[in-house]
Amino acid sequence: MKIGIYGYGNLGRGVEAATKYHTDAELVGIFTRRAPETVKTLLGTPVYAAEDILSFKDKIDVLILCGGSATDLPEMTPALTKDFNVIDSFDTHARIPEHFENVDKAAKESGHIALISAGWDPGLFSILRLYSSAVLPNGKDYTFWGRGVSQGHSDAIRRIEGVVDARQYTVPVEAAIGAVRRGECPELTTREKHKRECYVAVAEGADKARIEKEIKTMPNYFADYDTTVNFVTLEELKKNHAGLPHGGSVIRNGNTGINAENTHTVEFSLRLDSNPEFTASVLLAYARAIYKMNLRGEVGCKTVFDASPADLSPLSPEELRAHML
Amino acid sequence: MKIGIYGYGNLGRGVEAATKYHTDAELVGIFTRRAPETVKTLLGTPVYAAEDILSFKDKIDVLILCGGSATDLPEMTPALTKDFNVIDSFDTHARIPEHFENVDKAAKESGHIALISAGWDPGLFSILRLYSSAVLPNGKDYTFWGRGVSQGHSDAIRRIEGVVDARQYTVPVEAAIGAVRRGECPELTTREKHKRECYVAVAEGADKARIEKEIKTMPNYFADYDTTVNFVTLEELKKNHAGLPHGGSVIRNGNTGINAENTHTVEFSLRLDSNPEFTASVLLAYARAIYKMNLRGEVGCKTVFDASPADLSPLSPEELRAHML
Repeated sequence: MKIGIYGYGNLGRGVEAATKYHTDAELVGIFTRRAPETVKTLLGTPVYAAEDILSFKDKIDVLILCGGSATDLPEMTPALTKDFNVIDSFDTHARIPEHFENVDKAAKESGHIALISAGWDPGLFSILRLYSSAVLPNGKDYTFWGRGVSQGHSDAIRRIEGVVDARQYTVPVEAAIGAVRRGECPELTTREKHKRECYVAVAEGADKARIEKEIKTMPNYFADYDTTVNFVTLEELKKNHAGLPHGGSVIRNGNTGINAENTHTVEFSLRLDSNPEFTASVLLAYARAIYKMNLRGEVGCKTVFDASPADLSPLSPEELRAHML
Repeated sequence: MKIGIYGYGNLGRGVEAATKYHTDAELVGIFTRRAPETVKTLLGTPVYAAEDILSFKDKIDVLILCGGSATDLPEMTPALTKDFNVIDSFDTHARIPEHFENVDKAAKESGHIALISAGWDPGLFSILRLYSSAVLPNGKDYTFWGRGVSQGHSDAIRRIEGVVDARQYTVPVEAAIGAVRRGECPELTTREKHKRECYVAVAEGADKARIEKEIKTMPNYFADYDTTVNFVTLEELKKNHAGLPHGGSVIRNGNTGINAENTHTVEFSLRLDSNPEFTASVLLAYARAIYKMNLRGEVGCKTVFDASPADLSPLSPEELRAHML
């Protein structure tokens, strides 16, 4: 399948690198809003101006959209699905229904297929929530994130006056995970589920007490959590906190038996050295899925709930049944 | 959807109990090869003779086949799919391709849909092997089973002269799981992955040393494992080992990055108080899936790889996108 990458930040670079391993993906080009000649790629992939994308209309099977969810994708995905099969990693959970409607309309009118919100949450975690609740309806599920870097929370700290750079780790509370793993089905507050660890480099002479207070009392981001603030030098930040690790767990406790006497625990966990590279790998697997679905004549907007597991694999149904079932 | 249960052992009872929670499943009847009047059901479900099944041809949407994989299902599934949509939990991995062909032929000729090998392994574990390898092609996966009761191994011990009853637990080796969880991608022998714990009640005067030796040297079942044999009274066995717990983990380590420098670990784990009740719950979720697929006109033999996640859920696509994605 011929793949285009639209947007070349961390995620776009992750997709490019992942084509080394997803060997059925042939990379046609990278499309950027920057001046193409200023962009250095990892694998020597050709770089084109985003505005030239339409001249690749018949040369790309699936265009992978690597923009941000806040402002890029709500415009980009419906617009580009008019001319391409597209996939995005739109992750603003509350706005997914609206995004779906916009993309579905554009995709159906033009006869293309689009898949939105691929990645790990939304994405693989969503699938596991669905599978485990479909199997165990009499139960309750929990999602824990981390230990990992939250870019949104890191950015929120960077906007505070006097902060030079910052890295925020979301950390699940071990006692809470333990109770869920033991099948205790606890009721947990926001504070009981996650804590937040901040590493902050400040300008010379900045008021650390004020900065710490501003972080810990910031509504939505930190006020509802136990937050620790560690002031470090910029060198320490670059040396020890340069990566973008993440991960987490979806855990469902459910009961069966005539008196609900038997407890079952289903857990799905990820430990990721690189959040963008893993997300990029998920995008390539779903690019393969919609490519196959489109060859069968399917059009319109899809999500990870609509692709069968077999559609994600490069193996044939016969190979899958013989070796993976 | 109207459900029939064909076969009423541990699994059939599990399906009956699970209809308490899968509230879209209406139980039409239980079909047994025993004399129906001798069968006492958990929920007062009507019991019929297996030979009367054809008179229910238009009254059942999906017939759940609860026979054994060794001799029942290879005959039963192709035969019954001539008149019903059926689902089974056929779990002899090596014979799945052959079973698939037989069922597919019968289902297509009669215009029915069948889904084979649903459960957790084959089943949910298979799906997780597929998802994780499709996302991380540059990696290696591991399946660990237990701690849980293996009925096949328990039966093998019971066939030894002098043994009155036995229960065998398959136990994953913690050091092996630990190395895999740390992303070390180890090479593991059979012995390094699992050990076997046996609880054995023997007849008075039986030669325990001979029995222990026969167990530990039994080819295929025990010879390749570190096996411990504990002799217990029949009362202890009934008191402490009456349940059928099981579980396990599918773990994949995979690398991404231009130099494969980033490691990711994907893990799916089950801890089950009752293996048959959990398997029964999976069967009901897949009965729902093939019921929906059949309403869309799909026929032939399917596996868990062919059903989309959405097909397993009683929720609408809109509800799923709004609340579970």
